[in-house]
Amino acid sequence: MGPTFSKPLAARETPIPGVVLFDLPVHGDNRGWFKENWQRAKMTAAGLDDFGPVQNNISFNETAGTTRGIHAEPWDKFISVATGRVFGAWVDLREGPSFGAVFTAELDPSTAIFIPRGVGNAFQTLEDGTAYTYLVNDHWSADAQDQYVFLNLADETAAIAWPIPLADAELSEKDRNHPRLADVTPLAPRRT
Amino acid sequence: MGPTFSKPLAARETPIPGVVLFDLPVHGDNRGWFKENWQRAKMTAAGLDDFGPVQNNISFNETAGTTRGIHAEPWDKFISVATGRVFGAWVDLREGPSFGAVFTAELDPSTAIFIPRGVGNAFQTLEDGTAYTYLVNDHWSADAQDQYVFLNLADETAAIAWPIPLADAELSEKDRNHPRLADVTPLAPRRT
Ligand SMILES: Cc1cn([C@H]2C[C@H](O)[C@@H](COP(=O)(O)OP(=O)(O)O[C@H]3O[C@H](CO)[C@@H](O)[C@H](O)[C@H]3O)O2)c(=O)[nH]c1=O
Ligand SMILES: Cc1cn([C@H]2C[C@H](O)[C@@H](COP(=O)(O)OP(=O)(O)O[C@H]3O[C@H](CO)[C@@H](O)[C@H](O)[C@H]3O)O2)c(=O)[nH]c1=O
Repeated sequence: MGPTFSKPLAARETPIPGVVLFDLPVHGDNRGWFKENWQRAKMTAAGLDDFGPVQNNISFNETAGTTRGIHAEPWDKFISVATGRVFGAWVDLREGPSFGAVFTAELDPSTAIFIPRGVGNAFQTLEDGTAYTYLVNDHWSADAQDQYVFLNLADETAAIAWPIPLADAELSEKDRNHPRLADVTPLAPRRT
Repeated sequence: MGPTFSKPLAARETPIPGVVLFDLPVHGDNRGWFKENWQRAKMTAAGLDDFGPVQNNISFNETAGTTRGIHAEPWDKFISVATGRVFGAWVDLREGPSFGAVFTAELDPSTAIFIPRGVGNAFQTLEDGTAYTYLVNDHWSADAQDQYVFLNLADETAAIAWPIPLADAELSEKDRNHPRLADVTPLAPRRT
């Protein structure tokens, strides 16, 4: 199943404040397809934060059912898919009234999502060989992980309806051991 | 064939001035792999231009043998592969002593290349389902194509040894009709 072609660029609010879902135009032809995955001018005009990326990461996931998360990082992310398809799940882990709010959506190459600092990010691949790509506005380091907030993928309060049961999913050892929501320390607003 | 894992980040000069080839560390595990595809601080320290990307493009190529190029654009590009493998070919189309210089290299997820403004860019996919991704430091527009310099993929002077003969390759109609080197107007240095 390929991406939906030729949708106009569009931005949609979600139930989590600051999380914005994008439709991306994808141009198909005899060779395959082409997309502007991030375009600062057009997307800022459409409602994307001018977030100033300094790093582009790619994770490749061998099999359908590979699941990563839930990680709230101390920087913003603009996430999309280069090839394949994922079920994405986001949980607000910021201190405040929306703590614990959940949003899920399927992402394919014709969609992208902006995830602000402090919102927990996770995904499960729906196809073998899925390449997940994202831009972030601060440099990762092994030490920066001390500022991550983690939530267990199986948390009963968030109750994410994973398409493939976590028992059958490929996970990292680290991701098996994150705390439940009641034990999470919410991310405090950035001191300025 | 997967990418080569765990090479340290390294930058190498090429025969074309300003074209720099990178080895990228790729971290493999039970899920697949993860890479920092672009990391401003580390890569600038390693010798990458601090080129200030404003756009990230992805082209998906259905079949091995899909060939795109040769396009010299009026901005810089940092190119890599999300999944699959390409044979890349670059021809200097800038006014000056290196006009016509050629460099070719295979790119997989563990490599990247910086292509400055005015150097012609082309690639041929070596695997079905190859996702090619790049960052550029100016916004594309249909009008900006007037400032592109094009060279024919089959140019006899550049004499690129395409792994799959162009007669068997998937091309755009536009790319079949670019001029030979003798008919190319070299890209003039940017007026400042
Ligand atoms: C995030 C990151 C990780 N790494 C290295 C550390 C590990 O050797 C390897 C994989 O890191 P992990 O922390 O296991 O990656 P993963 O569980 O996929 O999680 C990261 O990548 C996910 C996407 O794959 C994001 O949704 C998460 O927020 C992010 O934390 O890559 C880097 O070299 N640079 C990075 O920026
Ligand atoms: C480059 C570019 C193209 N497009 C649109 C125009 C077309 O509808 C479709 C494909 O454009 P084409 O010009 O045929 O793309 P392609 O031949 O692949 O060439 C572009 O993409 C190549 C990589 O695929 C680059 O190596 C070339 O330098 C670049 O010009 O995407 C955009 O919407 N934004 C862009 O930035």
